[in-house]
Amino acid sequence: MRILVLGGDGYLGWPTAMYFSQLGHEILVVDNLAKRQWEAEIDSIPLQALPTLRHRVRLWEEVTGKEIGVAVGDIAENHRFVYDTFGDFEPEAVIHYAEQPSAPYSMAGRDHAVYTQRNNVIGNLNVLHAMQKHVPDAHLVKLGTMGEYGTPNIDIEEGWLDVELNGRKDRLPFPKLPGSFYHLSKVHDSHNIHFACRVWGTRCTDLNQGVVYGITTDETELHPDLHTSFHYDAVFGTVLNRYCVQAVVGEPLTVYGAGGQRRGFLNIRDTLQCVRLAVENPADKGEFRVFNQFTEVFSVLELAEMVVAAAKHLGMDAQIAHIDNPRVEAEEHYYNPRNDALLALGLTPRLLSEELVEDILSRVARHADSIDRATLLPTVRWRHADVPAPTR
Amino acid sequence: MRILVLGGDGYLGWPTAMYFSQLGHEILVVDNLAKRQWEAEIDSIPLQALPTLRHRVRLWEEVTGKEIGVAVGDIAENHRFVYDTFGDFEPEAVIHYAEQPSAPYSMAGRDHAVYTQRNNVIGNLNVLHAMQKHVPDAHLVKLGTMGEYGTPNIDIEEGWLDVELNGRKDRLPFPKLPGSFYHLSKVHDSHNIHFACRVWGTRCTDLNQGVVYGITTDETELHPDLHTSFHYDAVFGTVLNRYCVQAVVGEPLTVYGAGGQRRGFLNIRDTLQCVRLAVENPADKGEFRVFNQFTEVFSVLELAEMVVAAAKHLGMDAQIAHIDNPRVEAEEHYYNPRNDALLALGLTPRLLSEELVEDILSRVARHADSIDRATLLPTVRWRHADVPAPTR
Repeated sequence: MRILVLGGDGYLGWPTAMYFSQLGHEILVVDNLAKRQWEAEIDSIPLQALPTLRHRVRLWEEVTGKEIGVAVGDIAENHRFVYDTFGDFEPEAVIHYAEQPSAPYSMAGRDHAVYTQRNNVIGNLNVLHAMQKHVPDAHLVKLGTMGEYGTPNIDIEEGWLDVELNGRKDRLPFPKLPGSFYHLSKVHDSHNIHFACRVWGTRCTDLNQGVVYGITTDETELHPDLHTSFHYDAVFGTVLNRYCVQAVVGEPLTVYGAGGQRRGFLNIRDTLQCVRLAVENPADKGEFRVFNQFTEVFSVLELAEMVVAAAKHLGMDAQIAHIDNPRVEAEEHYYNPRNDALLALGLTPRLLSEELVEDILSRVARHADSIDRATLLPTVRWRHADVPAPTR
Repeated sequence: MRILVLGGDGYLGWPTAMYFSQLGHEILVVDNLAKRQWEAEIDSIPLQALPTLRHRVRLWEEVTGKEIGVAVGDIAENHRFVYDTFGDFEPEAVIHYAEQPSAPYSMAGRDHAVYTQRNNVIGNLNVLHAMQKHVPDAHLVKLGTMGEYGTPNIDIEEGWLDVELNGRKDRLPFPKLPGSFYHLSKVHDSHNIHFACRVWGTRCTDLNQGVVYGITTDETELHPDLHTSFHYDAVFGTVLNRYCVQAVVGEPLTVYGAGGQRRGFLNIRDTLQCVRLAVENPADKGEFRVFNQFTEVFSVLELAEMVVAAAKHLGMDAQIAHIDNPRVEAEEHYYNPRNDALLALGLTPRLLSEELVEDILSRVARHADSIDRATLLPTVRWRHADVPAPTR
């Protein structure tokens, strides 16, 4: 199958490209390499310096004999590039990661809010239009986020809600309570895609993904330079990855507020598994299909406690520090999201264990000297002082 | 009260500016005058040539002795202009009409879809950030559209829905089924504003307005050159206004498809009344308040039949022609939107009557020679041939 991986230089995009290449598919990776600029802007570096995309692609061919194509360009700013890429490659599946992925980055002021929504929403609009023109039967596998839903006081269904009102019924898009301008951009994308499905017959699977953790996949293990970017800073680092780095360098694990914030989580290897299940079982023509993509729910405090316990096995004395929550979010709330759809397709979750956390800790420890502690604490704040904290 | 009218050169913005000025408020009008460019682009002209904004403001002062301030600038492209305007004028209320308002324009291809969402979403983001910085207690009165809801098979509440699921309850944003990239831009705005209310304590009233008809207000009647722009073409003309022009020039009234599309409608004079009620009864700090702003529901076929009947009284022999529906929309559907909130605040609707239609027809007839029939038929099509028509 010809598979286009948009955002293939990123934390998830690069492992995805290798994974599908290894499965025998024809892969073209697209990226504008903007993450490199964002890193410099916020003074963040990944745990290991990341070889260039083209270097890794050459190495991938040396190691496996398989080719991955590369097209460098900006899907939001250069629509001709998007149209040409779709017209020339004619993908059967499009895996779309090419978005600014950080909530704190999007909350760093007007410029960052506008940049995030322009980049994500317009990039996605260009993709929808290019698909409609060149590959109207292709399947869009779009990465959304569980953060689109926020934390409603009801169970979170998968994208849709059966509503009964005054004796009448309909199945409608699940109401959204996104918690940052980044999360909002994904909600906007979901609405735009749903419309394209209705009007143009676009096929789409919108993957509302939980928080990803982990550092390795089968493919990253094939050569040291095939690793993916692992961020641990307060802007681009996901929470478990950041805790592990804090434990390794002897800094307290910073839990935002009370720590009762419950979220869906999954291993980076399960991201690959979920995306494969979506690609292999495409949405119908005109179908806007939504999967909640996570394997387990934890509170951020529970995660910190697990890291403390795992660190102890390795002789590290990790501490937890509750700090002022820079975000606006409920710190104790109901949370019961469903994830039946991917399980029904055959997802076999790799559950989080202290053993897995120990493995992450050990790998992080090899690079302990390069870790920049200054980037671990949050600097972007959501709330203005006179606004009361929400209860959900 | 200091009131900022964003989009004050437009069909609704200009009458709004005069109306609040007449009520004794201090008014500053902001506009980028882009509508003049869009008109040229699609070869559309309003029924009467529109004097420049500054000309009408000078005339307003001559006629009434009242000043209306003017600031020409682009709220989407020039955020410094937005911040400076909010910082200098310090509005207590912000009435925001400054968006690309046409569904067909937004569906004319990728460029127009992207332009519409960039212009509307980023302009609104700039307004939210400027309010947060300079006037965090001001009240945003944002013009949305009933088209955000689409035509669900349940009653349409006002912005919110009480959901019960598996024995638990929450009050959540009403699910949206917008029908064009324009309507989607308003949904995106609503989500962004709701977030600003939650995080920054912004006060907002989101007015989900129906289709406006009418040509005159008390203020436009004060001098012939104080009229507002009246579009009748298939891109910017609202449906009743277009029907009236078709009747006057002896063209068939073009009903899209079966004509059972039911929508909320209101007189332009009631737009002013509703906006005044919102401004005089501001939302609470942090409240995202949604009003459905219409007075009556008609199908587009019923409206055409009313125009035919009114035209007959004036000796015009108007005909109805059902043409292929250029849009993707259900042509027979359930539609029961609520509008209790504005009624509870004291809205006294001016219901549509054959007499009012006769008045519009008579006014249009005075300008019959200038009407360009070539712009009456739709040229922008939503649907691709292989996508089945929706049932709702």
